[in-house]
Amino acid sequence: MTRKQLTEQIQIKKSYLTVGLDTDITKIPKHLQSHPDAIFEFNKAIIDATKDLCVSYKINTAFYEALGVKGWQAMEKTVNYIPTEHFRIADAKRGDIGNTSSQYAKAFFETLNFDAITVAPYMGEDSIRPFLEYENKWTIVLGLTSNAGSKDFEQLRLVSEDTNQGKVVCEDTNYGGEFLYEQVLKKVSNWGNKDNLMFVVGATKASDLEKIRKIIPDNFLLVPGVGFQGGSLKDVSKYGMNKDCGLLVNASRAIIFASEKEDFAAEARVIAQQYQNEMAEYLK
Amino acid sequence: MTRKQLTEQIQIKKSYLTVGLDTDITKIPKHLQSHPDAIFEFNKAIIDATKDLCVSYKINTAFYEALGVKGWQAMEKTVNYIPTEHFRIADAKRGDIGNTSSQYAKAFFETLNFDAITVAPYMGEDSIRPFLEYENKWTIVLGLTSNAGSKDFEQLRLVSEDTNQGKVVCEDTNYGGEFLYEQVLKKVSNWGNKDNLMFVVGATKASDLEKIRKIIPDNFLLVPGVGFQGGSLKDVSKYGMNKDCGLLVNASRAIIFASEKEDFAAEARVIAQQYQNEMAEYLK
Repeated sequence: MTRKQLTEQIQIKKSYLTVGLDTDITKIPKHLQSHPDAIFEFNKAIIDATKDLCVSYKINTAFYEALGVKGWQAMEKTVNYIPTEHFRIADAKRGDIGNTSSQYAKAFFETLNFDAITVAPYMGEDSIRPFLEYENKWTIVLGLTSNAGSKDFEQLRLVSEDTNQGKVVCEDTNYGGEFLYEQVLKKVSNWGNKDNLMFVVGATKASDLEKIRKIIPDNFLLVPGVGFQGGSLKDVSKYGMNKDCGLLVNASRAIIFASEKEDFAAEARVIAQQYQNEMAEYLK
Repeated sequence: MTRKQLTEQIQIKKSYLTVGLDTDITKIPKHLQSHPDAIFEFNKAIIDATKDLCVSYKINTAFYEALGVKGWQAMEKTVNYIPTEHFRIADAKRGDIGNTSSQYAKAFFETLNFDAITVAPYMGEDSIRPFLEYENKWTIVLGLTSNAGSKDFEQLRLVSEDTNQGKVVCEDTNYGGEFLYEQVLKKVSNWGNKDNLMFVVGATKASDLEKIRKIIPDNFLLVPGVGFQGGSLKDVSKYGMNKDCGLLVNASRAIIFASEKEDFAAEARVIAQQYQNEMAEYLK
């Protein structure tokens, strides 16, 4: 999917909602749990009930892998069932040396027909490049995540290094004093462009979005953490939106597990509609 | 597998070799490529030919996922075929928010019966903890990797931060001037212990191993990059070994693709034997 196609969908639907299919077999309604194809049946009902309200679906690969081969089959069926006007994200957090990242890219962009995959930046450029080589496919790199652990490494401060002298220099110039995640955003944004690269930025850090937008004004941001994790859609939209909208806001559990009963799909729609209504306001 | 069982195997076999099953369907011998179960047949032959020379097998999940459901089936069959006295590693580089990492742990420790999984540290403590909760299972966290991209983030220098003053302080005390990967080793080693936590340290950085061993004297290290990536087994063993050996040295392509012909398993054994002979010397 191209950036133009994505932004058109956002305008048509007045929505930048991503529905996260974190389909936990133990949390789906009881009447479905014994179904031989429970995960897919659940996803199908959620997709049917929400597809006009969202522009994207995000499949969290962990919940499928936990079920082994059967889970992988459910993932394949689900991605094929998602309408092609929707942006299909594999939330897989992959990343390895070049020849291995190439295989992950093949897995999610060719074997499974996803439009995008989330990638962890720790191993650097050659772990990310193979994903960027695919035309009209998207790499979504972790920037600042929404979990407590983001403090452990993402928010450590860096010093600039005078490599000629082999001496550590600490000045508030260049990127001295900058957080690791800011350096990730800066460096990685040079490896791709606004047409093939997005970043994960957690909604629980909405106050940081203003700063983040100075570093990457044009890239789309995938924003998890609205809903169960407590982030505010209003703040995210206020500080994160750019002229092309530039946001995909994900809600998973808040939508798909809105009800534990047979009415789960209708209740999922109610919550998705609330998000979409609010988003339509912010898009004005 | 417990640490005691692993170190016993190392002593019995006089080997700390891990054979990496990076089984690329396009690189296996022609006569096998058309086999309906090509990946598993190839792995089976490699395992049969090398199992007395190595203490561990490492399955690189990317090569299996690239084949979709069929690849996941081959992975399942392979891990079940590996003898239980071998340490079975899922080289999966996973890691996500807590509830998602729990699902990955379930996928690789319960659904698939691996002993260990590689995990990326970027998202911090709650992304790693769920893996550490399994008894007699191992979490292998990325420290310093063997690829060129390790310079991009792993080898950036950190400053200590005076949070009371909100002021960045740069002194060569505490962890001022330390590399990110050193801080990863320090912090993560406190979340687990030498009985459930290992680190990935690339062989191409053997000169750094001395420094690394001061930070984590007791943890096992999984060392890729010997062989095709150019690392030296001698240097790794010299600087990385501790009193329990403390090393698992991985070779993938150098062993499994030693020959493109029908003799591939016999040739894989020849190379594995060379590694084992050398390791027996270093273990004396």
